[in-house]
Amino acid sequence: MPSTCFDVLGIGNAIVDVIARTEEDFLLKQGMHKGAMALIDEPRAEAIYGAMGPAIETSGGSAANTIVGLASFGARAAFIGKVKDDTLGRAFAHDIRAAGVAYATPPAADGPSTARCYVLVTPDGERTMNTYLGAAQDLGPADVDPDLVAASSLLYLEGYLWDPKNAKDAFVKAAQIAHEAERVVALTLSDAFCVDRFRAEFLHLMRSRTVDLIFANEAELHSLYETSDFNTAVAALRADVGTAVVTRSEKGCLVISREGTEAVPAFPVERVVDTTGAGDLFAAGFLAGLARGADDRTCGRLGALAAAEVIQHLGARPETSLRDLASENGLAG
Amino acid sequence: MPSTCFDVLGIGNAIVDVIARTEEDFLLKQGMHKGAMALIDEPRAEAIYGAMGPAIETSGGSAANTIVGLASFGARAAFIGKVKDDTLGRAFAHDIRAAGVAYATPPAADGPSTARCYVLVTPDGERTMNTYLGAAQDLGPADVDPDLVAASSLLYLEGYLWDPKNAKDAFVKAAQIAHEAERVVALTLSDAFCVDRFRAEFLHLMRSRTVDLIFANEAELHSLYETSDFNTAVAALRADVGTAVVTRSEKGCLVISREGTEAVPAFPVERVVDTTGAGDLFAAGFLAGLARGADDRTCGRLGALAAAEVIQHLGARPETSLRDLASENGLAG
Repeated sequence: MPSTCFDVLGIGNAIVDVIARTEEDFLLKQGMHKGAMALIDEPRAEAIYGAMGPAIETSGGSAANTIVGLASFGARAAFIGKVKDDTLGRAFAHDIRAAGVAYATPPAADGPSTARCYVLVTPDGERTMNTYLGAAQDLGPADVDPDLVAASSLLYLEGYLWDPKNAKDAFVKAAQIAHEAERVVALTLSDAFCVDRFRAEFLHLMRSRTVDLIFANEAELHSLYETSDFNTAVAALRADVGTAVVTRSEKGCLVISREGTEAVPAFPVERVVDTTGAGDLFAAGFLAGLARGADDRTCGRLGALAAAEVIQHLGARPETSLRDLASENGLAG
Repeated sequence: MPSTCFDVLGIGNAIVDVIARTEEDFLLKQGMHKGAMALIDEPRAEAIYGAMGPAIETSGGSAANTIVGLASFGARAAFIGKVKDDTLGRAFAHDIRAAGVAYATPPAADGPSTARCYVLVTPDGERTMNTYLGAAQDLGPADVDPDLVAASSLLYLEGYLWDPKNAKDAFVKAAQIAHEAERVVALTLSDAFCVDRFRAEFLHLMRSRTVDLIFANEAELHSLYETSDFNTAVAALRADVGTAVVTRSEKGCLVISREGTEAVPAFPVERVVDTTGAGDLFAAGFLAGLARGADDRTCGRLGALAAAEVIQHLGARPETSLRDLASENGLAG
């Protein structure tokens, strides 16, 4: 296997989060499904923004958050995702580069504006998301640089890429190049409703060995196999993919492979402020462990540590050096 | 005195904050004066942004923060300040209106973009600010609605208004209308370097009774009277203005009038995360007290409470209802 320039290359929707605190009844009035991600068009985006409270803007995007988390762990990280050359697009590009991530996807010169996700955080810390995909719709195979994919040890993809019209072609192209270069391909299932939209395709990706490693939370797993029985779903998952990591919030995670299952506990958290990015940062920690050849348990602990950091503040990107945090918790690389 | 529609009308620079954590040496390398506000042009803004870390965008502006704080206390609040009709300008307008503030200043259709303040927060929680005034430069007397001024019990102005070219004319016009309607006019001195730029004019505003109430921190007070002796400065202040409130960080504040001086303690704070907005929110609490006819001590305690809230998180606007916080601390109106 030739040497690499990056530990992990992520491909995902490049999104700026617009985050506001809200009460439960706002979600009800707006007909939102608490905890989920809904796709919205521009008029709906304007309507939600007009009705919601004061907000902060911060770069987001599921895979982008993961990649920024990896950089914070000290991993060599790169990202592919589409913004427009507008105010929010320039902020997205600034933030991800300033975090130490290689990001070279050319912005769209015209067309829809940079993607925005209206994130509503209820007093319990749960987030409910409404995404206007905008310029992220324009990500396509031409944005995938084959040399970059081949030069990255691991390719990380988000299930949300199935929503924009051409991004799945970019996904499949990248996975193919990665496997030709003997790289590992990982996929996060993203969201239970996203799984519901693309169940057959996600299962095909797994069974055809297009992906080697799956990240899922319990809701996504239940949605994938359309069962409410956890053990049934885990058994199916074990048969369908090389390695799967199932996150279970405060119950920690399971690392599932043909050889067995490793249960890894979560890190205790004083107060959950905003769960946005919990899954994304879990993946960051896990992949940071993989990048340095750590065992399943250490990978799981690193994931749990990064998730614990991000849910204790507003926003989906780490506010402290995850490398330092790992050292302080006896998980130095 | 005719009845009013608003407790407080604020006039100030309408600014979006771009906030990033940074190390001390970044300030040194960039030649920044720690803790101060520096005015920058657009090329310098681009250079700072290019060099600084990942950021969040959130509405700011000194007087605007105060007015939002007043609304959070349940006061009837209005704001005048100039943005451009661009992405950040629309975010500013959304945020201040969503906070319950009446805001009707027409945005500029062309010209420079909405003002941005690059706020660099060091590990000790201190903030260092670099402001590109942009569209805020265009605030002028025409933006001051005389009926709005006359219908507000108190007019609150920021010293920073002396920086844009026409805003001081708007300031003086508003103060004149307010006094004709028998309203109270308050001024914050804003920043020690701002005082240094406009010392003679600020003293004239006080001595000519254009302003009735002054907010200043210790550095601004020392700058105003060019003395390092606190008692000398306080004595001069007492002679120059009807009422003055001097904030002293963890030492609380002094409320100074001809009748005497009331020392009010600060609220204890577990951890200072970001001091941005401390002075702004102190003024909000103090004015919220004034609006309900509270005594000096209660006004000072409300100011201290609001300042304590805002320095415990990133950003210069309250993240919780200040009215509820006041109730919980035995300071309900």
